[in-house]
Amino acid sequence: MAIGKAVRRVDAIAKVTGRARYTDDYFRPGMLVAKYLRSTIAHGRVKKIDTRRAQRLPGVEAVFTYEDVPPIKFATAGHPYALDPAHQDVQDRLLLTRHVRYWGDEIAVVVAENDLIVQEALELIDVAYEEYSPLVTPEAALAAGAFEIHAGSNNVVGESCYAVGGNIEEALAQADVVLEGRYRTQICQHCHIENHIALAYMDDLEHIVVVSSTQIPHIVRRIVGQALGLPCGRIRVVKPYIGGGFGNKQDVILEPMVAFLTLQLGGRPVKMHLSREEGMIGTRVRHPFTTQMRAGVMQNGTLVALDIDALSNSGAYASHGHAVAGAAGARSRALYPRTAINYHAKTVYTNIPAAGAMRAYGAPQMMFAVDCMIEEAARRIGMDPVEFRLKNVARQGDVDPLTGEGFESCGLAECLQRGKALIQWDAKRAARPRKQTGPVRRGLGVACFSYATGTYPVCLEISGARIILNPDGSVHIQVGATEIGQGSDTIVAQMVAETAGIPLANVHVVSTQDTDVTPFDTGAYASRQAYVTSNAVFRAATALKAKILEHAGRMSGILPAELEITDGRIVRRDDRARKNMPLAAVALDAYYDKQRGGQLTVEVSHKTCSNAPAFGCTFVEIEVDVPLCRVQIKEIYNIHDSGIILNPLLAQGQVQGGVAMGIGAGLYEEMLIDPESGYIYNNNLLDYKVPTIMDVPDIGCAFVETFEPTSGYGNKSLGEPPIIAPPPAIRNALWDATGVKIDELPMTAHTLYKHFMKAGLL
Amino acid sequence: MAIGKAVRRVDAIAKVTGRARYTDDYFRPGMLVAKYLRSTIAHGRVKKIDTRRAQRLPGVEAVFTYEDVPPIKFATAGHPYALDPAHQDVQDRLLLTRHVRYWGDEIAVVVAENDLIVQEALELIDVAYEEYSPLVTPEAALAAGAFEIHAGSNNVVGESCYAVGGNIEEALAQADVVLEGRYRTQICQHCHIENHIALAYMDDLEHIVVVSSTQIPHIVRRIVGQALGLPCGRIRVVKPYIGGGFGNKQDVILEPMVAFLTLQLGGRPVKMHLSREEGMIGTRVRHPFTTQMRAGVMQNGTLVALDIDALSNSGAYASHGHAVAGAAGARSRALYPRTAINYHAKTVYTNIPAAGAMRAYGAPQMMFAVDCMIEEAARRIGMDPVEFRLKNVARQGDVDPLTGEGFESCGLAECLQRGKALIQWDAKRAARPRKQTGPVRRGLGVACFSYATGTYPVCLEISGARIILNPDGSVHIQVGATEIGQGSDTIVAQMVAETAGIPLANVHVVSTQDTDVTPFDTGAYASRQAYVTSNAVFRAATALKAKILEHAGRMSGILPAELEITDGRIVRRDDRARKNMPLAAVALDAYYDKQRGGQLTVEVSHKTCSNAPAFGCTFVEIEVDVPLCRVQIKEIYNIHDSGIILNPLLAQGQVQGGVAMGIGAGLYEEMLIDPESGYIYNNNLLDYKVPTIMDVPDIGCAFVETFEPTSGYGNKSLGEPPIIAPPPAIRNALWDATGVKIDELPMTAHTLYKHFMKAGLL
Repeated sequence: MAIGKAVRRVDAIAKVTGRARYTDDYFRPGMLVAKYLRSTIAHGRVKKIDTRRAQRLPGVEAVFTYEDVPPIKFATAGHPYALDPAHQDVQDRLLLTRHVRYWGDEIAVVVAENDLIVQEALELIDVAYEEYSPLVTPEAALAAGAFEIHAGSNNVVGESCYAVGGNIEEALAQADVVLEGRYRTQICQHCHIENHIALAYMDDLEHIVVVSSTQIPHIVRRIVGQALGLPCGRIRVVKPYIGGGFGNKQDVILEPMVAFLTLQLGGRPVKMHLSREEGMIGTRVRHPFTTQMRAGVMQNGTLVALDIDALSNSGAYASHGHAVAGAAGARSRALYPRTAINYHAKTVYTNIPAAGAMRAYGAPQMMFAVDCMIEEAARRIGMDPVEFRLKNVARQGDVDPLTGEGFESCGLAECLQRGKALIQWDAKRAARPRKQTGPVRRGLGVACFSYATGTYPVCLEISGARIILNPDGSVHIQVGATEIGQGSDTIVAQMVAETAGIPLANVHVVSTQDTDVTPFDTGAYASRQAYVTSNAVFRAATALKAKILEHAGRMSGILPAELEITDGRIVRRDDRARKNMPLAAVALDAYYDKQRGGQLTVEVSHKTCSNAPAFGCTFVEIEVDVPLCRVQIKEIYNIHDSGIILNPLLAQGQVQGGVAMGIGAGLYEEMLIDPESGYIYNNNLLDYKVPTIMDVPDIGCAFVETFEPTSGYGNKSLGEPPIIAPPPAIRNALWDATGVKIDELPMTAHTLYKHFMKAGLL
Repeated sequence: MAIGKAVRRVDAIAKVTGRARYTDDYFRPGMLVAKYLRSTIAHGRVKKIDTRRAQRLPGVEAVFTYEDVPPIKFATAGHPYALDPAHQDVQDRLLLTRHVRYWGDEIAVVVAENDLIVQEALELIDVAYEEYSPLVTPEAALAAGAFEIHAGSNNVVGESCYAVGGNIEEALAQADVVLEGRYRTQICQHCHIENHIALAYMDDLEHIVVVSSTQIPHIVRRIVGQALGLPCGRIRVVKPYIGGGFGNKQDVILEPMVAFLTLQLGGRPVKMHLSREEGMIGTRVRHPFTTQMRAGVMQNGTLVALDIDALSNSGAYASHGHAVAGAAGARSRALYPRTAINYHAKTVYTNIPAAGAMRAYGAPQMMFAVDCMIEEAARRIGMDPVEFRLKNVARQGDVDPLTGEGFESCGLAECLQRGKALIQWDAKRAARPRKQTGPVRRGLGVACFSYATGTYPVCLEISGARIILNPDGSVHIQVGATEIGQGSDTIVAQMVAETAGIPLANVHVVSTQDTDVTPFDTGAYASRQAYVTSNAVFRAATALKAKILEHAGRMSGILPAELEITDGRIVRRDDRARKNMPLAAVALDAYYDKQRGGQLTVEVSHKTCSNAPAFGCTFVEIEVDVPLCRVQIKEIYNIHDSGIILNPLLAQGQVQGGVAMGIGAGLYEEMLIDPESGYIYNNNLLDYKVPTIMDVPDIGCAFVETFEPTSGYGNKSLGEPPIIAPPPAIRNALWDATGVKIDELPMTAHTLYKHFMKAGLL
């Protein structure tokens, strides 16, 4: 049995030895490099651009400006195509723009022999702008008479609302206590190790090959086609190993441009790679949210109402646009399915870098607001925060009040109990003085989350798997599921080993996706991969096993139903010790007998029409140095109900990485934008503070294993959830330690100083 | 309809623009090059080898000798694996040898940074030999007490015989006339433009990737595994475009060595390429045959008996070994199925370069002998050579007298009639003096052939196809069938277009085979590809069409049986003009509807259990300049029954290339070996004379289109047949012109001089 085992990643050796091939390892003879000319203002219009000096520079192959690109608007969001035009992504981009919408917008591109010449050429281009006043906040963009960042948009990307559990005003009116709050989350950036990079070339004059560090090769194929006005059958996308994405590579950023360039340059290979400084502004960021909220709560601890109003800042382009705020809202009703919720959200264009998908897709923003409010409710009625949550959160058997879909597995209450025990919640609270004084104080905090597994029913959920039995009895499997560092290849191998009875070492996963031949899957995002893929792989492995047993039956004269595959051998069900035959013997016969058999292969394309929420919570104990305005995490635990844990080692890795990122979002990270000019102060890893190994404590994690029946192997989402709850848990612990309630992120020393001063602690 | 149309090759643009990627275009960072140290004697044993000076040379990475290679004997012949051990290829090779068996045998290999250093290092290796007397001819190798070139072999690679049509001695005894002859064919070499080249590397430490210019990627995978003692699932073979093979790349030559080297060198990429001089000795040559024959013929023109005894020279290693002489024998009984035939053949080891597969695999050797004999028979009984052939050759409804399999299509008689008319056989013969005199004389010649389509039932015949419907309504098809210049990709595209109703431009063929993901097929040889692939492609395209119509039915509410696909649109069978829907709309719905459909793909692995002989003939008119001993071809026609012609343009190309090669074999080409030392005089294209464009006349070709029902599209073999009959036709024309009967090849000026002198013409 391979599922549930802490097996080593299938790509471990390739990665630690440096053999694993990334996009930058792809070389083509005659390859050119390209780089964008980025605007030096945040809002305006190019009056005049003179590229003549750049074009004359030896080694420059070509310079293209906004005047040279196809007049085709396209969307960059990595969503499956929607048949319903109303659900299609906003098409608001050209390959290059004359209307500059953020500091660093792409107005021209230079192609040259090497990076040095490109850089020199960029500096030789003269640009004259007509400048407009940048609209940096949603409030400014929504002000009456504000300049339209995209014509006809009123600066609104999207707006949505839902109401469940009855009339919200009535529910609030009946509540014993009504609370109100306003919460603000900041602009974060993904900061994956490998920056965006893509390469395109033409093997012939009819097909464009794009090699890219992407989470979504098949979607890249479609969007490149759309952006260039070419049928997607003429585009081939290859995805090698990638060095992180966290949602930022769920956007199609460089690929249409490199494809355009190779098309313009007679098929010559053209590579683009973004520097860290470019990537931090020129790709995507997390949408900052401002959330206004009211809660109604009964003295007995029942949360009766949540009235939520979120304003999301999409920045210069729609990218994932309003989908993020929409998805964010859904998390609340999965977490508190018995509460009346009114959710309204609006996403707005501004002149900051475009926001897109980032790990947990709006949930961190919304769950921060909700969990701050929940904490306040518990405290206001004098109830233990854990007890309050236990009373209100989702339980097995609850239904999503909007869709009516039941939660077939929910272990959130057990997660809370487990976390409480791990951190010794009751003992520590009992041992502590009622009100702490002195410079160094301790606090305990908790926060909960729910998270979807995939995007159904909002979007299509499709996965694909093809398995080939090799003549030596091993198998190769191709999946559309993309390995982006999360361990997807390893999980797929475990699934095949488990279901087909083949030793894990004999399951070879074709890691590189190649849209010409890889089964269709929309990619790695929405914590969907192991869930939606499980159904395709389970069906494929089951079908392959049946084919193998059928052939073994022909060879042995035993009915296939009496045979089984165990550890790579064919055995009789009724006598597993006897009459067994290695799988290789069956494979060899199937391939090489002159009449019977054939190459045994199976391919499955599966649409998943379910979505199972995962749940969990963070418990944290912090120490606050009040004079230094410093928070130190003493203990932190994330406890997850992600269904069956397929590989504890990989699961732990996901949790530790996610919690570390959550700590960064809670305490350190923020992209700083000048409110007047739109200039970005810290688009580099020196000034933008991501937590390092020195900042991250030992991270404890535990799993409450439920079994999710809609999944091939009982599993639910785990990739994104770990990032959600640490910031509110830390915030609640900070409140617990100091009595100071901070409703904005990040809780840096600067933020603490401001709030501690206001509260009279300093 | 796409079948039968002279459409442009799908790779035409890629090839003429230089974009098509060949093995040498594959580059890997840190790539090393390797080269063999070749023996400077033809037979002997290395007493001592000193590589120390070479190893010390800066830039040399490693030197390996026969002492360093795995002690695993392997076979190099590109045959499907045989489950029956008695039919497996002779395993007589190590990666490097101490026992030198031909002039140029591989005793060591140097790996270095570049070609210059490799060459320098090779010259620094000191070798001392113990020399044995080379056995250059089969007769010498078979002589009593001859040194065993391979221990325990008695210098015999294989021996076989068959007898059909009754007792041969009785048949000969009853014949009116009995003839006897002895025929000799020479050593030829393939002289494909692209020499052998292969590259290996490891992406991780568990899998070896081999990129190779090969006709047989899946077989390479198996043999590399066997040679290194690794399971084939850990070997991945990639086949890019190749620059010709003609059977010489149906042998596994460099691949096991490059795989061994990368394995030894921690996965570093290692490339080997052979120079022309190396390739002409170190790859394979055509087996020279000496054939002793008796024929029995009745005065009425009935050929009653053929008694054939062939001696085939395999050279230093078995390679394809006796299979060539075995296959050669089968051609006679397909051509003269109503004649008693006794066939005996023996294949012998000698100390010349190893012989292997070469276009038409023994048929040119055997058909030369048979057609010389047939010509003699016709002349002896005073019958027109065409009439004599017409009376005796295979007709539709004949059966293979050995296997009992009927010929379901046979248009040979029509081919003979057509050729006779094209060359104006009767008119020219009538207009000519009975006996020519003077220095310049004209002659007419004819020769016939039959050729199998594939290798069944001797070997496995398997093909595979996978088709993916793209979201834009185009398809990608992967086939195991390998494009080796013959146009296989184009034919496959035509088959899919024909059967699925998709415009040819929307059928994208994945040309590069990659054994990790490409459907299994044993490769391009035996003129099998279009025949065996036709069944897999037909089944796959038919199944895909059914899936498309099923989905279109769901979308439209019309029964799939009432729908049809025509030119990329879904139409109603009963009203083709109305209610049609583009295929792209169906594809888009199948991909993107949230519940129904899925990616529509089909995969078929098909075993072909039939073999349809193709037939045809060559007619030639030559002018002989007797004093100059020069033959000039005035007109030449090849007329083929290859079933349905799938693409007249490609078919014509095959015929013209094959006839040109046949002219080369008939008049120019021979590898010259010193009978004493085994030294090869002309392993280069200056001294080994292949015909150039100046030597080749306009080549006429015509097709008698029969329909072969065992084939998916009615087609039969065409790749190899064109080469077979030109040499005997020219020989017969030379006899006709001069009265001189030449029973050896090639008919160079030297040969003619010898025979003309003997005949008193000079």
